[in-house]
Amino acid sequence: MSEDPLAWSRDFTPVLRSLAEEYGDDQPLDGYTVAVASHLETKTGVFVETLHAAGARLLVSGSEPYSTRGPVVEALSQVDGIETYVEAGMREEAWEAGQHELLEQGPDLILDDGCELIAKVHDEHPEVAREVVGGGEQTTAGIRRLEAMDDEGMLEFPVYGVNDTPMKNHFDNVHGTGESSLSNVMLTTNAMLAGKTVVVAGYGYCGRGIARKARGLGADTVVTEVDPRKALEAVMDGHRVAPMAEAAAEADYVLSATGSRDVVRAEHLDALPDGVILANAGHFDVEIDVDALESAAERVTEPKEGVTRYHLPDGPRVNLLAEGRLINLTGPYSQGHPAEVMDTTFAMMFEAARDLATGDRDLGPGLYQVPDRLDRAVARRKLDDMGVAIDEMTDRQREYYEDWRLEGSAF
Amino acid sequence: MSEDPLAWSRDFTPVLRSLAEEYGDDQPLDGYTVAVASHLETKTGVFVETLHAAGARLLVSGSEPYSTRGPVVEALSQVDGIETYVEAGMREEAWEAGQHELLEQGPDLILDDGCELIAKVHDEHPEVAREVVGGGEQTTAGIRRLEAMDDEGMLEFPVYGVNDTPMKNHFDNVHGTGESSLSNVMLTTNAMLAGKTVVVAGYGYCGRGIARKARGLGADTVVTEVDPRKALEAVMDGHRVAPMAEAAAEADYVLSATGSRDVVRAEHLDALPDGVILANAGHFDVEIDVDALESAAERVTEPKEGVTRYHLPDGPRVNLLAEGRLINLTGPYSQGHPAEVMDTTFAMMFEAARDLATGDRDLGPGLYQVPDRLDRAVARRKLDDMGVAIDEMTDRQREYYEDWRLEGSAF
Amino acid sequence: MSEDPLAWSRDFTPVLRSLAEEYGDDQPLDGYTVAVASHLETKTGVFVETLHAAGARLLVSGSEPYSTRGPVVEALSQVDGIETYVEAGMREEAWEAGQHELLEQGPDLILDDGCELIAKVHDEHPEVAREVVGGGEQTTAGIRRLEAMDDEGMLEFPVYGVNDTPMKNHFDNVHGTGESSLSNVMLTTNAMLAGKTVVVAGYGYCGRGIARKARGLGADTVVTEVDPRKALEAVMDGHRVAPMAEAAAEADYVLSATGSRDVVRAEHLDALPDGVILANAGHFDVEIDVDALESAAERVTEPKEGVTRYHLPDGPRVNLLAEGRLINLTGPYSQGHPAEVMDTTFAMMFEAARDLATGDRDLGPGLYQVPDRLDRAVARRKLDDMGVAIDEMTDRQREYYEDWRLEGSAF
Amino acid sequence: MSEDPLAWSRDFTPVLRSLAEEYGDDQPLDGYTVAVASHLETKTGVFVETLHAAGARLLVSGSEPYSTRGPVVEALSQVDGIETYVEAGMREEAWEAGQHELLEQGPDLILDDGCELIAKVHDEHPEVAREVVGGGEQTTAGIRRLEAMDDEGMLEFPVYGVNDTPMKNHFDNVHGTGESSLSNVMLTTNAMLAGKTVVVAGYGYCGRGIARKARGLGADTVVTEVDPRKALEAVMDGHRVAPMAEAAAEADYVLSATGSRDVVRAEHLDALPDGVILANAGHFDVEIDVDALESAAERVTEPKEGVTRYHLPDGPRVNLLAEGRLINLTGPYSQGHPAEVMDTTFAMMFEAARDLATGDRDLGPGLYQVPDRLDRAVARRKLDDMGVAIDEMTDRQREYYEDWRLEGSAF
Repeated sequence: MSEDPLAWSRDFTPVLRSLAEEYGDDQPLDGYTVAVASHLETKTGVFVETLHAAGARLLVSGSEPYSTRGPVVEALSQVDGIETYVEAGMREEAWEAGQHELLEQGPDLILDDGCELIAKVHDEHPEVAREVVGGGEQTTAGIRRLEAMDDEGMLEFPVYGVNDTPMKNHFDNVHGTGESSLSNVMLTTNAMLAGKTVVVAGYGYCGRGIARKARGLGADTVVTEVDPRKALEAVMDGHRVAPMAEAAAEADYVLSATGSRDVVRAEHLDALPDGVILANAGHFDVEIDVDALESAAERVTEPKEGVTRYHLPDGPRVNLLAEGRLINLTGPYSQGHPAEVMDTTFAMMFEAARDLATGDRDLGPGLYQVPDRLDRAVARRKLDDMGVAIDEMTDRQREYYEDWRLEGSAF
Repeated sequence: MSEDPLAWSRDFTPVLRSLAEEYGDDQPLDGYTVAVASHLETKTGVFVETLHAAGARLLVSGSEPYSTRGPVVEALSQVDGIETYVEAGMREEAWEAGQHELLEQGPDLILDDGCELIAKVHDEHPEVAREVVGGGEQTTAGIRRLEAMDDEGMLEFPVYGVNDTPMKNHFDNVHGTGESSLSNVMLTTNAMLAGKTVVVAGYGYCGRGIARKARGLGADTVVTEVDPRKALEAVMDGHRVAPMAEAAAEADYVLSATGSRDVVRAEHLDALPDGVILANAGHFDVEIDVDALESAAERVTEPKEGVTRYHLPDGPRVNLLAEGRLINLTGPYSQGHPAEVMDTTFAMMFEAARDLATGDRDLGPGLYQVPDRLDRAVARRKLDDMGVAIDEMTDRQREYYEDWRLEGSAF
Repeated sequence: MSEDPLAWSRDFTPVLRSLAEEYGDDQPLDGYTVAVASHLETKTGVFVETLHAAGARLLVSGSEPYSTRGPVVEALSQVDGIETYVEAGMREEAWEAGQHELLEQGPDLILDDGCELIAKVHDEHPEVAREVVGGGEQTTAGIRRLEAMDDEGMLEFPVYGVNDTPMKNHFDNVHGTGESSLSNVMLTTNAMLAGKTVVVAGYGYCGRGIARKARGLGADTVVTEVDPRKALEAVMDGHRVAPMAEAAAEADYVLSATGSRDVVRAEHLDALPDGVILANAGHFDVEIDVDALESAAERVTEPKEGVTRYHLPDGPRVNLLAEGRLINLTGPYSQGHPAEVMDTTFAMMFEAARDLATGDRDLGPGLYQVPDRLDRAVARRKLDDMGVAIDEMTDRQREYYEDWRLEGSAF
Repeated sequence: MSEDPLAWSRDFTPVLRSLAEEYGDDQPLDGYTVAVASHLETKTGVFVETLHAAGARLLVSGSEPYSTRGPVVEALSQVDGIETYVEAGMREEAWEAGQHELLEQGPDLILDDGCELIAKVHDEHPEVAREVVGGGEQTTAGIRRLEAMDDEGMLEFPVYGVNDTPMKNHFDNVHGTGESSLSNVMLTTNAMLAGKTVVVAGYGYCGRGIARKARGLGADTVVTEVDPRKALEAVMDGHRVAPMAEAAAEADYVLSATGSRDVVRAEHLDALPDGVILANAGHFDVEIDVDALESAAERVTEPKEGVTRYHLPDGPRVNLLAEGRLINLTGPYSQGHPAEVMDTTFAMMFEAARDLATGDRDLGPGLYQVPDRLDRAVARRKLDDMGVAIDEMTDRQREYYEDWRLEGSAF
């Protein structure tokens, strides 16, 4: 094993590398204290390094004790200007205490995952919140919470919803979560997807990535949704759509990616076929109602690492992967999101931070979309790295684009 | 052949049928004069019928003389309360005259395709424009023009950009244009797509539908784009991306769906391989620079119905389908968009008209997004017709959705 | 329209062109009278030309009056050394008479489609059959008949089963029938496949091509089979598998490609949903039991060209395309198989004829596989035309391939 | 962790379970000593159990020390009537010695993987070979060797080529190797496949499974082949085809599945892009010329578990997974083939053994195809387990199938 735990990920995060290079001299984040909370594995380590290279002082938390990698914490904590407030496998109390300690340092910028730190700073450190310059959030679940906070007028500072950029939606959610969820399910179960009925709950960006790729591997896919438009899209994309009560009855797998809760719940359990496999690809561990499984089971075993089996009385044996936590980050073979995906997401987070720090826009408190120019700049940086060239508009095309008078003709 | 030219399409437009049924009594459009311009084939005929069933007086134009079907015009013109201003195969002058005559009737609502009537009424009948209650537009190209007009502050009335609803984007553009463009290309050339290199210009909704389905049929796909984000999406979806100058050189087919002009132009011609097939799936006939082909060719032949072959000197023979007009509507085997697709698009147009007429919202002049509630209602109506049931949020899920405090836990 | 009806197809049959060129001097078929029966459209015309270029005297029949194109017959009949025995739209008696007249000429070689001429010559012209040098057959249905004849020891001469070469199976059946069946269904109905449930009967080469491509366009696919291995393959490829009685109940489309008969029959009719569309992609018009539909219907209409609608009493309206004949050859928009596909199939037929004529092998009566060397040679000729280069085995690889002693190691 | 290491796999091997149940009473293998060599993980354990349940005495070897799982060896060795001759991680000499010791026991049947034991028994224990009743072989590489031995007339007993059954080809090679190779590559590298150029060497059953599924996940795929027919199939399936020297130059990944050697060799190294990832999915570790890499590299590091990085002077850094051994069985996260896949393959091996033991056919020495009836029976057993029903031929269909006279008509 290489001694530097971040080395491999650095090779797969060329956009971050090019940002570190470009801003290593200017130091646009000099004088800023930046809090970062995210699943603390190697890619997050490279992200923290990149912010540090641009001049920031870093306060580092994790997103889950289970997804926190010891060697990464150790490597970061040895860097001058980077302070870590978590350890791998921490218990709840110590974890909470670490996050409060971090917030008490008074970060200028908070780059969050699941709205953990931003919610906490508003809820429990309001005086710190009032001094924060701005923040960024990278998950769907976190944005959902920020929207609710924003609706209630509770936000004390501007937050960029990085999760909602086209780049993030397509690159990270569709492809990153899609691929890493499936590869982890495949290896955790050592069962195959071809020929199986895979029920995907939720047809947002994550869900459609999972569904499309499961289909690409040979699965028969069934989608559940609460939104009629997304349901119709799923139908048109070739998936079957059904309510969970019906879909569950023919599932070999149920993969949940809704950002909601109780997607599989007590009322569905009896319908599940014997040997069904349940896994969660959503941010929080509430998508599959684990309490309902615990209550219903007459016996719980662990037939394979990462698999909890609930033996329902007179009913099916239900296999739950990774205890209902998100499978691509906490499964037994989990390597986290593919590195290149995090590369662009973290690059967006970096650009959001730089934009807030350099004050290019005068933003009041609230949740904001990342300006298109930043999103587009990251996309172009990524294409450059891939060696992909694209067309430029000609003058005549630009003119045509801007002119509303009809130039095409039907004759 | 059935005597009623609209019969078959009625079977495939269940959403329009259910609207006609629901609003046949209320007559929400009673007292309104509605101008409709669209490719005047059977589905548009059913749309016109539906508006008429809801009480409107109709003024009907087409979108192109070539896509105007005589029997449809005839059937509509026999209905009391429907006036037609076009005929199949009209020459330019008569066509223009018909549209002006139509506008002089002073329509209250204009439901447009390609912004033809709306541009014309502003440009040449400003006094009529000032009295219009509102409009709707169903194409990408039309929206682009409306945006330019709106930016210049020129719009005199509110227009709903029906093209930009999620329903329209996914249902009509991705799937409708995608399928009908490919099936028309396949039959017009009688060549196969499997094993061919298909260059798709533009990765908007139409382009991605074409690219995905061409790939699903077995083609090797190359996408050209001017937008780095769309280019990156195309790469991640498994297509190759290259500038046209490079892509053209290995193309068996070039299918254009950009909404722009000169996508294939003089500078690309020498790069094209002998026997290449060019077709346009965009609204206007300017995507492929036909003048450039005419100028460059030393001879022009028609080797097969619907195919114009340009023999370039010392160079390739280039086959252009349907004279560069949109292939799915004007090709020799063209049946227009699949009926079910137009069903939802026209249902959105209907709902937009009804919303403007009933004045549920007080809108000033400008381009507006169709309210989500209308889009969602059409999606639900369509799912109902397909017999697809979906889940409803539970109370606890709705609460969770609205609450920003963290309920999931990492412990 | 170009005056030469074969011109377009010649451009898409480069393998035949290269054979015509290579054998134009040698004239390996000089002195041979070759009977050809096949759907007599432009590609078959080029095939006949190619045989003629290699020195043969040609006797030409068709495969169906409906798929016989008048201009092709006319163009061929004007060539010295080519005699045609069919006309477009011939009635049954005249058609039969023509085939008998052809056989009475005493062909040396019979290149058949559906085993029409070969069955007829054995059944009704046994004295001619005894003098035939050999034959070739290009369809699955024809091979099935030849196998039965061979089992009964009835064949009087050797026949190459061209249909069963890897080239033919993958190129022609999977891709040619797959694409042309779907494009014809799409345009004949003007309905879309995305979001529809498409039942494909039969998972042989044709069926799997149709199923895979329908899925690639966005359909939900259900396969019916009688063979457990093919059924399992279909499941593993991601299709659902069910008996027809069950599949029919949820079908939007039923496409039959089994080579069998009565695939959709009386017992299934009541299960069919209203508006279902039935089409046949198998050789004979017996896959869908049209008599059963006729008997059951209380009314028959034609709502659209190429569509026969059976109104079942108190039951569904069932739409049958192209009267149950094979949709890709007899539908209203039919162009026959894509030209490139026929190019390789006809090239195999040519090579089979040449092999039989030059007597490279001394074959007794019976059904034979085409030697691999011929199949491989056609594949290579096709790749050359496509500009695709492949690897050659190195000496070490060839050695390894031939050596059974273990060289790889686990240590 | 469950104490019984075979428990999880038993749940996913329903066909083996049903065989154990059916033959538990009859004991058709009673009195037979059966040698088994295969990757000795949990599924192989269940296979051994099943043979034991049918009455056999078992002699168990592995296929590779690296793929031999200690707990499985231990569990099996505790069963009376099962003797194990390997241990996990054994060194070469001990491994060899164990296999010789096994062969000296004089097995009646040899069920092999890679032709290891069968080659050894002929080469080094000819007196034992002469007494063997028969054998079975489950890999492509093994069959290749057996064909060479058979051509040289060296085989002393009949061997069923289980690898070549339709069931094995489609179920195990296409889907099993396809999925498990990709999931192991994905987790070993933690990089994503979407948007990457994946070069797949070989378009046999394994290669096409890998290529199709990689494409289904969003990769751009390039296939290399030496056989023109397979190359053409790959083109028609939508993959690009190129010689390795050309494909290597644009590869993000090269996955080899040819059954040959030196697929990536010295001459290709300079063409490889920096950071390319090489992995082998073929049986032996000779597909990627590791010696060439060793010789060329100026430095070798291990940037991540399971990844060997060769730093070429002035050239690319080349990452080799699992030391060039087959990635799905020896990678760091390897779980072996998905269990259900091995279920059917081992069921075929079981049926082959039972057929040889019960002497239903009187076979001389040589390599034989497994009779269709056995293959079909396993397929049906598998469908039964999946709850998939299929159609039965009607009498009329069976008659039609057997009758060569034309019943379909063109009129």
